[in-house]
Amino acid sequence: MGNERFDKGFDLLSKIDGEAGQKVIDSLEDICPDLGKYTIEYPFGDIYSRPGLDLKSRELATVSALTAMGNCVPQLKVHLHAALNVGCTETELKEVIIQMSVYAGFPAALNGMFALKEVLSERRA
Amino acid sequence: MGNERFDKGFDLLSKIDGEAGQKVIDSLEDICPDLGKYTIEYPFGDIYSRPGLDLKSRELATVSALTAMGNCVPQLKVHLHAALNVGCTETELKEVIIQMSVYAGFPAALNGMFALKEVLSERRA
Amino acid sequence: MGNERFDKGFDLLSKIDGEAGQKVIDSLEDICPDLGKYTIEYPFGDIYSRPGLDLKSRELATVSALTAMGNCVPQLKVHLHAALNVGCTETELKEVIIQMSVYAGFPAALNGMFALKEVLSERRA
Amino acid sequence: MGNERFDKGFDLLSKIDGEAGQKVIDSLEDICPDLGKYTIEYPFGDIYSRPGLDLKSRELATVSALTAMGNCVPQLKVHLHAALNVGCTETELKEVIIQMSVYAGFPAALNGMFALKEVLSERRA
Amino acid sequence: MGNERFDKGFDLLSKIDGEAGQKVIDSLEDICPDLGKYTIEYPFGDIYSRPGLDLKSRELATVSALTAMGNCVPQLKVHLHAALNVGCTETELKEVIIQMSVYAGFPAALNGMFALKEVLSERRA
Amino acid sequence: MGNERFDKGFDLLSKIDGEAGQKVIDSLEDICPDLGKYTIEYPFGDIYSRPGLDLKSRELATVSALTAMGNCVPQLKVHLHAALNVGCTETELKEVIIQMSVYAGFPAALNGMFALKEVLSERRA
Repeated sequence: MGNERFDKGFDLLSKIDGEAGQKVIDSLEDICPDLGKYTIEYPFGDIYSRPGLDLKSRELATVSALTAMGNCVPQLKVHLHAALNVGCTETELKEVIIQMSVYAGFPAALNGMFALKEVLSERRA
Repeated sequence: MGNERFDKGFDLLSKIDGEAGQKVIDSLEDICPDLGKYTIEYPFGDIYSRPGLDLKSRELATVSALTAMGNCVPQLKVHLHAALNVGCTETELKEVIIQMSVYAGFPAALNGMFALKEVLSERRA
Repeated sequence: MGNERFDKGFDLLSKIDGEAGQKVIDSLEDICPDLGKYTIEYPFGDIYSRPGLDLKSRELATVSALTAMGNCVPQLKVHLHAALNVGCTETELKEVIIQMSVYAGFPAALNGMFALKEVLSERRA
Repeated sequence: MGNERFDKGFDLLSKIDGEAGQKVIDSLEDICPDLGKYTIEYPFGDIYSRPGLDLKSRELATVSALTAMGNCVPQLKVHLHAALNVGCTETELKEVIIQMSVYAGFPAALNGMFALKEVLSERRA
Repeated sequence: MGNERFDKGFDLLSKIDGEAGQKVIDSLEDICPDLGKYTIEYPFGDIYSRPGLDLKSRELATVSALTAMGNCVPQLKVHLHAALNVGCTETELKEVIIQMSVYAGFPAALNGMFALKEVLSERRA
Repeated sequence: MGNERFDKGFDLLSKIDGEAGQKVIDSLEDICPDLGKYTIEYPFGDIYSRPGLDLKSRELATVSALTAMGNCVPQLKVHLHAALNVGCTETELKEVIIQMSVYAGFPAALNGMFALKEVLSERRA
């Protein structure tokens, strides 16, 4: 499965999110390993590894989008962990989530904040 | 119509986006001035003026969300102008828009990039 | 094409929206008349003609939903006309559109209000 | 935390939904009390307390929008309770939910109806 | 409740999905039987029974749309079962779900694939 | 810019859609050529070129998803052309668009059908 884009993406995702890279691959292992491969290669091998925007800003952008879209809480939680791992503060995450009430409405912002509450509680445990 | 939240929001929006604050109010003047007032008070008087996240990060977050949602191009263009006004670089905006292909798909990212193309062309004119 | 559900739906839509029923059918005539038929039969023949909710409340519900969804302005405008035709006041329409800022964000509410502005201007012309 | 908009919003939400106002504040207390404050102030202090549309119509509009958007079931359930509290009948709620099948598709309407089923069952318990 | 459209739809849904037709009706029996009736009549009595597109292609189209929309997992799972029942292969379903990463983003595709994983596991049990 | 994935994707897109591949690249040339490159590489180089699903089924899946999502008409039109180019019939396209009324509502289906009407008219010109 190894190739340059995959390896670069896997290394970056591992650096950002510890075991998350391996978990994505594992969870798709018995159903569709190719989707696991693409999920490493394109988002992380191609995009997150680009220069021009630091990882902190990338994670804040992703948290904003996933909070606003509102239909992918598991991925939002992964990226809340990732954001904290690359140096975003709790305050910064709360601010972008609050801000989404303006663009996507209060239910989206509330559900984003409850996801953050779970993430912070997982990290304390 | 003046009150503390409105005044603070109007000043901030004017600082961010030049005439945009006045334009929002003007465009709603003959249909629903109250919505213009709320659009200043809550987003700008309450939220953008909060400490804890700088204006550059706030605008990147908004550009991400509006690109991902994909159904509000006029507001996306306002915030692309705003982002450039508060110091986001063209490169940073391109990066968050490219990144949205990962979370909201290529059509959303392409339409976001075309909005940026128009905005950059408006600023050159 | 005539059948009981179609006839009931067409009569109701004509009563609500004047020529709109005929316009839907006409616009689909040379591409897909069956979709025109279904658009009369199910929404108007089956649903709007049900007892249990008056037409004014039905149109307010539709205006709310289409404003919140934000990706179907032409249909929103048809229903803003319809709402005014069945007795909703301008004030009531403005109130439900403003209210959508809470649930779907300010861009959705602003775009809904601009659609209402166009509709009111069309009716004056 | 007290201020005029908050107090007006909190009173209104308490009148509409019994303990719901306090619950929102409590659930955000240890993560982001400011979002709780905004959720009272803007939606309830500013919007629901406006004249021009009665509370029954406001709740029907919200139920319509949240059913159509389909990604915020917890908030939909809160507003189904609220709607029943301010005098909407079960029949009226069923009618707006059925009607959403026309604008947002059958899955959204079915999921809205199942949320209502849970709410009615909670109220009987 | 019997009528020609209902009977045709119920027969078709039963053929496609075994007990699913009866389950939809049963689950709505005590809350809103009319919505159950419409869910049989329009989608299955009117649409799926049309000539011009085979059932396999219809189910692939539905799986694509529900994966992309991302907010109706229960209905997606029903249609993944249905797709397999009418002759779609596991490979074909994986391919349309992977493809949705292009149009609706990776979170939508991942959640679609996890739904398929559950469906395949249910069928083995 | 050439690489194996790009070349494979560009060839496939050219085969499917004539000049469309070059047009995407051209339209992004002066704003963000990298997004053009990714739009060829991942969707076409990686995904559409996979075995396991024929191009006709892939295009029907994409037309379904873009019609249901409703916020990317330009891309829907590109894929309606593509679908016709790889052998989908007008009837098949009409059927998947009609079917989207069930899952995403009548406005989405109507706007999809009007996009097809434009595409058919462009092809006759």
